[in-house]
Amino acid sequence: MNTKEKYAVKRLVVNYKTLEEFKQFKEYGIQELSMLEDLQDNIIENDSESPFYGIYFGDKLVARMSLYRIEAAYDRYFSPPQDYFELWKLEVLPQFHGKGYGRALVQFAQSFNLPVKTNGRQQSSGFWEKMGFEAVTYNEERDRGENPYVYFPKGVTEQTH
Amino acid sequence: MNTKEKYAVKRLVVNYKTLEEFKQFKEYGIQELSMLEDLQDNIIENDSESPFYGIYFGDKLVARMSLYRIEAAYDRYFSPPQDYFELWKLEVLPQFHGKGYGRALVQFAQSFNLPVKTNGRQQSSGFWEKMGFEAVTYNEERDRGENPYVYFPKGVTEQTH
Repeated sequence: MNTKEKYAVKRLVVNYKTLEEFKQFKEYGIQELSMLEDLQDNIIENDSESPFYGIYFGDKLVARMSLYRIEAAYDRYFSPPQDYFELWKLEVLPQFHGKGYGRALVQFAQSFNLPVKTNGRQQSSGFWEKMGFEAVTYNEERDRGENPYVYFPKGVTEQTH
Repeated sequence: MNTKEKYAVKRLVVNYKTLEEFKQFKEYGIQELSMLEDLQDNIIENDSESPFYGIYFGDKLVARMSLYRIEAAYDRYFSPPQDYFELWKLEVLPQFHGKGYGRALVQFAQSFNLPVKTNGRQQSSGFWEKMGFEAVTYNEERDRGENPYVYFPKGVTEQTH
């Protein structure tokens, strides 16, 4: 992996091409189907902004994630409570693994200097730790079914309960 | 698959054997590590009840899920609002796929005649639909990052927002 190489992370727009490309990803589900329906029913416009960010190789979408800004009032992870990002559906197409695309997306999420929270899935803890994330102290009620890994910018610590 | 065969679904107890067996599952994470620490620190007793249910083949754990009862006050999925189960971490070890273990666990969750909600992952919608689950109407704010599939017992419908 050439870590010096830079990849352009782009905010994805909702159109038929994007939604067709999403089908390549394992985590395609009812969110994507709902976006497709909204587009077909003119509830959203073609080329609307989406919560997804991605990396193109030529004109092919090869990696994506979604990123949501959560308001401080809902923060149950960080101290002091503050706005933070939830990072979901990080996925690189299998034939493009090992090229730094996942890293580039995560670094994009970290570039706002706000905390980031994700759900580390399928024994991905090594990856998240390499990216500077830490496992939270498990809280049965809050974390049910999740495996939260968090990124603390300087001056931010874990919220204690 | 012999659908007439019955599998014994057992509530799993927290002990060193169970926690060692959990390592075989892909979704092993900080929940399991936290259970191990609690056991080591005597915060919980050996053989405490856990939220996990599983199926043994001989004395080997080959399938598991966790099941949490959520109180009606927190119900954002069902009408009328009521207690329901959240089903997480359903997983059958690869060499035991296709034998009906997953089905047996889900049927156990459905046997209480309460609604069940899960997060359908990695293009598993075919399985959930076969088990009588339906995709929810996607709600951006509630379902962020999730792919909720729900099971409605008789008389229960989807909550509208």
